[in-house]
Amino acid sequence: MIVSALFTSVGINLGLCFLFFTLYSILRKQPKNVPVYAPRLFHERQSQQRDDFSLERLLPSPGWLKRAWQPSEDELLSDSGFDAVVFMRIFIFSLRVFTFAGIIGILVLLPINYLGNQLTADYDISHLPYKTLDSFSISNVNNGSNWLWVHFCAAYIFTGFVCYLLYYEYNHISLKRISYFYSSKPQPHQFTILVRGIPAPPGSSFSETVGNFFTEYHPSTYLSHSMVHRTSKLRSLIDDGEKLCKRLTHLKSTSSQRRYRRDGFLGLFGRKVDIVDHYEKKLEELEDKVRLKQSQSALPVEEAPAAFVSFKSRFGAAIAVHIQQGINPTQWVTERAPEPKDVYWPFFSASFIKRWILKLVVVVAYIAVTILFLIPVVFVQGLANLDQLETWFPFLKGILSVAFISQVITGYLPSLILHLFLSVVPPIMILFSSMQGYISISQIEKSACTKMLWFTVWNIFFANVLSGSALYMVNVFLEPKKIPSVLAEAVPAQASFFISYVVTSGWTSLSSELFRLIPLVCSFIKGLFGRKDMDDFEVPSVPYHSEIPRILFFGLLGVTYFFLAPLILPFILVYFCMGYIIYRNQLLNVYAPKFETGGKFWPIAHNSTIFSLVLMHVIAIGIFGLKKLPLASSLIIPLPVLTLLFNEYCRKRFLPIFKAYPTECLIKKDREDLNDPSMPQFLENLDAAYHDPALMPIQYSSSTDGHNSPLLRAAEV
Amino acid sequence: MIVSALFTSVGINLGLCFLFFTLYSILRKQPKNVPVYAPRLFHERQSQQRDDFSLERLLPSPGWLKRAWQPSEDELLSDSGFDAVVFMRIFIFSLRVFTFAGIIGILVLLPINYLGNQLTADYDISHLPYKTLDSFSISNVNNGSNWLWVHFCAAYIFTGFVCYLLYYEYNHISLKRISYFYSSKPQPHQFTILVRGIPAPPGSSFSETVGNFFTEYHPSTYLSHSMVHRTSKLRSLIDDGEKLCKRLTHLKSTSSQRRYRRDGFLGLFGRKVDIVDHYEKKLEELEDKVRLKQSQSALPVEEAPAAFVSFKSRFGAAIAVHIQQGINPTQWVTERAPEPKDVYWPFFSASFIKRWILKLVVVVAYIAVTILFLIPVVFVQGLANLDQLETWFPFLKGILSVAFISQVITGYLPSLILHLFLSVVPPIMILFSSMQGYISISQIEKSACTKMLWFTVWNIFFANVLSGSALYMVNVFLEPKKIPSVLAEAVPAQASFFISYVVTSGWTSLSSELFRLIPLVCSFIKGLFGRKDMDDFEVPSVPYHSEIPRILFFGLLGVTYFFLAPLILPFILVYFCMGYIIYRNQLLNVYAPKFETGGKFWPIAHNSTIFSLVLMHVIAIGIFGLKKLPLASSLIIPLPVLTLLFNEYCRKRFLPIFKAYPTECLIKKDREDLNDPSMPQFLENLDAAYHDPALMPIQYSSSTDGHNSPLLRAAEV
Repeated sequence: MIVSALFTSVGINLGLCFLFFTLYSILRKQPKNVPVYAPRLFHERQSQQRDDFSLERLLPSPGWLKRAWQPSEDELLSDSGFDAVVFMRIFIFSLRVFTFAGIIGILVLLPINYLGNQLTADYDISHLPYKTLDSFSISNVNNGSNWLWVHFCAAYIFTGFVCYLLYYEYNHISLKRISYFYSSKPQPHQFTILVRGIPAPPGSSFSETVGNFFTEYHPSTYLSHSMVHRTSKLRSLIDDGEKLCKRLTHLKSTSSQRRYRRDGFLGLFGRKVDIVDHYEKKLEELEDKVRLKQSQSALPVEEAPAAFVSFKSRFGAAIAVHIQQGINPTQWVTERAPEPKDVYWPFFSASFIKRWILKLVVVVAYIAVTILFLIPVVFVQGLANLDQLETWFPFLKGILSVAFISQVITGYLPSLILHLFLSVVPPIMILFSSMQGYISISQIEKSACTKMLWFTVWNIFFANVLSGSALYMVNVFLEPKKIPSVLAEAVPAQASFFISYVVTSGWTSLSSELFRLIPLVCSFIKGLFGRKDMDDFEVPSVPYHSEIPRILFFGLLGVTYFFLAPLILPFILVYFCMGYIIYRNQLLNVYAPKFETGGKFWPIAHNSTIFSLVLMHVIAIGIFGLKKLPLASSLIIPLPVLTLLFNEYCRKRFLPIFKAYPTECLIKKDREDLNDPSMPQFLENLDAAYHDPALMPIQYSSSTDGHNSPLLRAAEV
Repeated sequence: MIVSALFTSVGINLGLCFLFFTLYSILRKQPKNVPVYAPRLFHERQSQQRDDFSLERLLPSPGWLKRAWQPSEDELLSDSGFDAVVFMRIFIFSLRVFTFAGIIGILVLLPINYLGNQLTADYDISHLPYKTLDSFSISNVNNGSNWLWVHFCAAYIFTGFVCYLLYYEYNHISLKRISYFYSSKPQPHQFTILVRGIPAPPGSSFSETVGNFFTEYHPSTYLSHSMVHRTSKLRSLIDDGEKLCKRLTHLKSTSSQRRYRRDGFLGLFGRKVDIVDHYEKKLEELEDKVRLKQSQSALPVEEAPAAFVSFKSRFGAAIAVHIQQGINPTQWVTERAPEPKDVYWPFFSASFIKRWILKLVVVVAYIAVTILFLIPVVFVQGLANLDQLETWFPFLKGILSVAFISQVITGYLPSLILHLFLSVVPPIMILFSSMQGYISISQIEKSACTKMLWFTVWNIFFANVLSGSALYMVNVFLEPKKIPSVLAEAVPAQASFFISYVVTSGWTSLSSELFRLIPLVCSFIKGLFGRKDMDDFEVPSVPYHSEIPRILFFGLLGVTYFFLAPLILPFILVYFCMGYIIYRNQLLNVYAPKFETGGKFWPIAHNSTIFSLVLMHVIAIGIFGLKKLPLASSLIIPLPVLTLLFNEYCRKRFLPIFKAYPTECLIKKDREDLNDPSMPQFLENLDAAYHDPALMPIQYSSSTDGHNSPLLRAAEV
């Protein structure tokens, strides 16, 4: 890619961003769009439709920027929870890293690269638009040049600075986590554990067994328990009922044509019946079935060998979680209970072995998907190489010779297509993680986040760098000795692709995040049909599993290309600046926290940064080898070793705090509660806190003729 | 090696074994040798010297075999502890495995190998002694022959059988471990934990901080604590004192020549002094110093940030061990306390960071030693190849042409030299492990055992197989794809070396274990000089760290060569049969348990067996590839995967039982104690149980003129 193509791409994307920002600032002021751009406000019914028209509503204004900027971290904490704060800390951390990197990279490394003459020795400023971006990368420095020692020092200084920041952030967040715990109100999940693998009792029910076991072994702290039931059949019945209800509502709201059908095979034979009557009858049958099942499920047959056990104190619960309970470690398996609304119910009944096998299956499936995904990546790679594209599709030759089109294709299209393909992956990862037998949505998201991160690194970074041939990639990683030199050859060569990736995919994803195109279109269509599903309205939650990996991936690009092609740094810095303000705005207006992990996403960000650093070092080893500076190549080896040792120290120093709360905190909190007059009431309600939604009594709204969703759960009433 | 050379070697070694056995059965009956052959009896003073001579004393008799055979497992348990039982279970397990392997190997695989004609097609029975051992290995089967499917099936059946046995043993031992715990008396280490990283208190002593912390957070279970003191200086003073005392005793017991020396530089200048007086004065000074130090050490300055904290119940101690105590995970680090006599005192004062760095240093040193050890291995390898030896030392040509000598050199010498070199390594491994900051001798032995095992596998197995060139070996392991084919070529080629290794090193080590040559010689020399250090006499303990790796290594040889060269199996079976009876004898008569880990050595044996199986599978993949049977080569791939999954399941199912006792056991034991009238007394004495020996008051025996060791510790009095 040449400089002018880069500027085309930057121009297009800056224009698009500006357009989106302007549109956003207008559209958000339209009362109709409140559910799209401020669902939290909408949900709290604070901004009822005030349809008073004013000119101000049609003018773009930057007021939202100010409102997003203003709140302090503590306000964000109380408003959006601790996970949102940690999410924003990733931006703050990245901004600090890339400001530092940018200063070194642009002021020191870039001039050195440009003044080298390995690739071109043409310093005429008027030729600048036609120079390739490679002349700004380390490839342009002369082989064996002593200027490379500047790059060497930069790698050491940068690593030191990043490690200092990592330590600072980890410390900051872990202290915040503890103080957040201290300031929290008593919550059911602090007092409750989940017990699985309850041994099959001879003659007595699971519930009795659990009761006996905990009264026997935790007599002073055990409070109560509620069993988990096998509700998969019930759940499918309820799902059927919901579908039927929706169809019924749809039928009633649309015109009354085709209201008759035959009641036989496929609606083709038998006598004609009124279709609404038919569905209503079916629905009633289903309702009866569900009620019957629900009353039956109180019988021991339907109990799963799992239970939520509540304790009188947080410390009591911690004791039961941390110490193996039964002699057989596959029985009486305990783990911390999630928040009641965070529980993922479907997988409770699975046995130890089944969950274990499912985990293995998921690992295999994950690897398969990761490899299959290479196909679109290879295709995209083809688009970036114009010559190859012309070989594949000769009829395009005419079009491709137009300069502008070829620039758009090389600069814009590849990363857009990649981006589209990538958007399909997060739901797949969520599916995988939910199959692994996690008990809470937060754990599933966390696991999907890690999966997604490595998927992105492998499929976007390595697949593009190593030219996409799957077989070749696997071969490289089977010969560890060659990795540095292969990477050192391939990574700088892809610098221009990744610069355009940051500009297109990165910036575009941010503005589309702000603009919320899909919800906007949905809301518009709904508005056209005059529907207003007020009861169906749900405030969205941050899709951490797709957002965090993307943000971390840009961090990885910045770190690895820091000394290879410092030209990428300003674009990444712009990405993080925009991201900081946009996500702040979204967290305050759009997303409501669905669960609270207490900052458990930070270790993922930490690990990803350490990985980026080590990857940078490995490439550095290769680069200095290629550049005929073997001394620098050997002297860089201590750097990854030291980085990994630093990581190991952080794991020991901070990670345990993110896994469980220590005795000190638990006992202090428990003591505080002793003076709380509401505690007895709270403890009494504990056993009702965990209740499978499938076992809640279902209830049709008075009749099936309203706009409202006809199937209402007691929980929502 | 040819068959006749093998028989020479077997003949020599069988003869040696028989000689040792006969000598042993005579020598053990001599009253003088009781301290050598039955130190446990000797220690219990049950067999005081009955010097009544009888002819029977001079005749060899097999009575000791019967006495070693008779005791049941429960008797061994009560006599030698649980670790001894586990040690013998390794033999029982191996005997079962190799009986099965031997039947298949000798009756099925060996004939198939022999009837192949890849190497030789000469079935004349009279040529048998001149045939190489390779004609009994898989190398002799024709390429592409369908007979190889028998080997394929044998690999599957054998793996299945070994896994079944592994599961059975793990289950058996874990149940025994629990029942051993149930039957144990209350012991200090069950109620005590070690706390390290006590934060530096502002103005108060460590001891107060510990007291406050545990009264605050464990008010109902905390009992008492005793601080650990920085005693390294004190310990070196006491050691100096001991050395001085020994020299003094030696001086007094030998002739009175040279009793004068000058008291100046190096004893060359200054005025003449009586040397005994001189030493006695020095000793007194030392004694005063030590006493002064000991009284000072009660001051807070000398306290280390570590303490043994005792609890009122086992469950109370378990709670403090399993849950992180302070907010900072590097402070208030808790771990289970070892038995009082098992404590390793020197490394207590080390800080978190220091221990962590030492661990890294040890890893590096371990790798260095492992690599340096290749030098003797290469040399030994040279001995086995006669041609190479003749090239190195041309003057030997004459001697080497004598058939018998060349047979001895190829069949006997290499493994004997290896064996000698290997005997230096266990103390080095113990040194490494003790530097890693373990707090008990048992943990040090366990860690040294693992280190020694991998050292043996790497240096004996891989170094010999891959012809000893260090660089070449590392290269192979950097290209994982090539491993199977490289191993498949190299491993069968070394079959004869390993057969002779089993016969020489294995059998010799067993008979020397029985004969206890070094203690015998020491005792003889002591007898000559008329010394009888009754107070110095210590019953030896089983050196698990050197014995277990050796035994497991023979298991590894048997498993890997099972289908390659089944000829090795009878020799290994003989090894395990002899080992079973000899070690039983030694456990009952010679070794006294120094500590009790509760069977924690079994997981090492389990892992080693799994490793052997997977190694066998990897070689099988390569062999079937070499033998032009690619289908079998691919079909064997599921086998290592299944084996590793099986191992993973065992880790989940059994390993936690070996790490800690579950709530169920702890509470049951605690309840039992409630009815025990001696418990209050026991709990009262708990804080005195852990006392640094360096802080015990030292005491000279009334005068320094006896045979007895002049420096007696209060503990021994």
